[in-house]
Amino acid sequence: MAETFVIAQGGGPTAVINQTLAGAALEVRRRFPAAKVLGALHGVRGVREGRFVTLSELSDEQIRAIAATPSAALGSTRDKPDEAYCEAILKGLDAVHADAFIYIGGNDTAGTQSILAEASGGRIACVHAPKTIDNDLMENDHTPGFISAAEFVAGAFLSIDLDFRALPGIYVGIVMGRHAGFLTAAAAAWSLDEESGPHLVYVPERYFERTRFVEEVRSTLDRHGRCIVAMSEGVAGPDGRSLVESLVPPELQERDQHGNIRLSGTDLGQAVERMLAADLPGKRARVDTFGYLPRGNIATISETDAREAFEAGAFAIEAAEQGGGSVALQFDGEKTVCKLVPLSAVAGRTRHMPENFLLPDNNRVSVTGLDYLARLLPRKYSAAKPFV
Amino acid sequence: MAETFVIAQGGGPTAVINQTLAGAALEVRRRFPAAKVLGALHGVRGVREGRFVTLSELSDEQIRAIAATPSAALGSTRDKPDEAYCEAILKGLDAVHADAFIYIGGNDTAGTQSILAEASGGRIACVHAPKTIDNDLMENDHTPGFISAAEFVAGAFLSIDLDFRALPGIYVGIVMGRHAGFLTAAAAAWSLDEESGPHLVYVPERYFERTRFVEEVRSTLDRHGRCIVAMSEGVAGPDGRSLVESLVPPELQERDQHGNIRLSGTDLGQAVERMLAADLPGKRARVDTFGYLPRGNIATISETDAREAFEAGAFAIEAAEQGGGSVALQFDGEKTVCKLVPLSAVAGRTRHMPENFLLPDNNRVSVTGLDYLARLLPRKYSAAKPFV
Repeated sequence: MAETFVIAQGGGPTAVINQTLAGAALEVRRRFPAAKVLGALHGVRGVREGRFVTLSELSDEQIRAIAATPSAALGSTRDKPDEAYCEAILKGLDAVHADAFIYIGGNDTAGTQSILAEASGGRIACVHAPKTIDNDLMENDHTPGFISAAEFVAGAFLSIDLDFRALPGIYVGIVMGRHAGFLTAAAAAWSLDEESGPHLVYVPERYFERTRFVEEVRSTLDRHGRCIVAMSEGVAGPDGRSLVESLVPPELQERDQHGNIRLSGTDLGQAVERMLAADLPGKRARVDTFGYLPRGNIATISETDAREAFEAGAFAIEAAEQGGGSVALQFDGEKTVCKLVPLSAVAGRTRHMPENFLLPDNNRVSVTGLDYLARLLPRKYSAAKPFV
Repeated sequence: MAETFVIAQGGGPTAVINQTLAGAALEVRRRFPAAKVLGALHGVRGVREGRFVTLSELSDEQIRAIAATPSAALGSTRDKPDEAYCEAILKGLDAVHADAFIYIGGNDTAGTQSILAEASGGRIACVHAPKTIDNDLMENDHTPGFISAAEFVAGAFLSIDLDFRALPGIYVGIVMGRHAGFLTAAAAAWSLDEESGPHLVYVPERYFERTRFVEEVRSTLDRHGRCIVAMSEGVAGPDGRSLVESLVPPELQERDQHGNIRLSGTDLGQAVERMLAADLPGKRARVDTFGYLPRGNIATISETDAREAFEAGAFAIEAAEQGGGSVALQFDGEKTVCKLVPLSAVAGRTRHMPENFLLPDNNRVSVTGLDYLARLLPRKYSAAKPFV
């Protein structure tokens, strides 16, 4: 039986990643009152460097207060360990006599756990607990963190559509999402009616073409007098290159250690603004980059999301008892349930938004897409239809 | 006694401008059950063009539903009428036999009312009811619309500070505000403690200098390991020119009918991003443009703001009975009260954020500034201090 659990958080923070931390810590306390729970600071980097806090010394109340706070309380990391790095992590885990290692994060985090599980030869139970606002993990119906971020995006687009009824024009909101369009599509979740924005949705799964974009904006303006657009940071052209890569001069492009071009920031926003100014001159057009605003926003924490994230953490302890793997949130036709799946089914793989979440001939969210969103984030606010 | 009231909404929408509309419409019903209330579509443009809806035919319930919906339900306009345009408005008011005209908006709207009051020679009671997220109206302690927008900004910066504790770097959030820095300073309202962001606040009232900015960011990074910046769209250099004007090539600058340079959009954001990349190379830096997100966001409507906006609308009917003027929200030392002030005291004038809301030697919000914000928007969310 496990006596020492190590927990860490990886990748981009979310509104509820601390719920998963709390769920795991409190489940250890419930099942193994004498066990020690260590939290590694800044993910596997803290494990390697021996930087830990002792979570099992905190009161239930202190842990619940952390749970209700957005962002990763232990700190996070973007490190993508190779095998040598993984050896150093294992040394760090052995140094604190860890029996189980729970790593909360996305598909890169599952990838790290996959290497560690193999390298440790079963000595340490390696569990991946899911987390990502991108909603792009295989085996999951949806992921903890997504619903809260989606509620931010849905509320923002409902509000902006109302704003642009009052003062007509074109609005483009750029939403995080490198490979998966779920969060961008969530812009449509709380649309008032068929006439309401977002009128157009551009996601990484369907290629973006300037001429078509401008034509779609123009015809929406003609029809509705305004045009509200939700666009993923990761939209790419027919050649598969991201729009940022095509639009920003190479000497100004920024890349991370892995060679991935930096998508956040204002490059795409400004490029789209210039495009609209050139191709639809004289039309009022505004572009905002949502960036970090949806992902850990204290004003839009979903209760469902918080509860599911907590449950995923608690289930991770059961998963550790079973030897490790990846915790997945699945839908059984009635409710969301936690299942244990192999790390290899999730590690390094991306779940894309299904093609039929958009209309076939039109960059709008389909009824299938809207049904999925309505199940996860039922309408939270009522709004009266304006006179204009 | 007035028998026909006309109400219109001008300028940028807010989360609670419909509360003011509802307050006025329901107060007419209470005091003059037989009176007619017309709503002009798209502000004075609708008055001139004879486009009205009859608000007095709606049920109380319908009016309350509109009140709870953000953005201007009647539509708005950016038109700044000159004297000829005002003559056309008066004709439009006479055509519907208006005894009183309530125009909800900012200082431009008060300016229009000032011209109309004079031109009508007292025939029509012209009332300005206050509204602006910029909080920049003379005679007002604060303005309806500000608190809700400020709550969005305060919650966002609290959340982003937590995010950047987990994954350190530089963050700049660009917030609406051409002449007044109140909304940007609201970023500090819910800071967790002295160590927390926003560490630096740049507002139009204090000039911006690149060298100093970069030094302040660098020293904040050294001290806290992260640097969270709130910056107004309207920041200007020592020569008084807005940063956008100095940074964006003239051929790409956009101007409105009044020659004002367009500040919203991503120009400033991208310029700041380039500045940081050049002067602090290798540092992780992210810039988001908040733009339209705070101003009418359905997720952050403040109850205080909603109530005060409703009361300002109701008071506007009393003001009409007294012959017209501008409704101002003032603070009597204990609570917010509505007062009637001359239109000329508000029209076309700008209230700036007091100099002592920032520290004298440091671009941070002072205790005086924080006290003002705490009175208007008491802390709404609790957050536990993270381990990092």
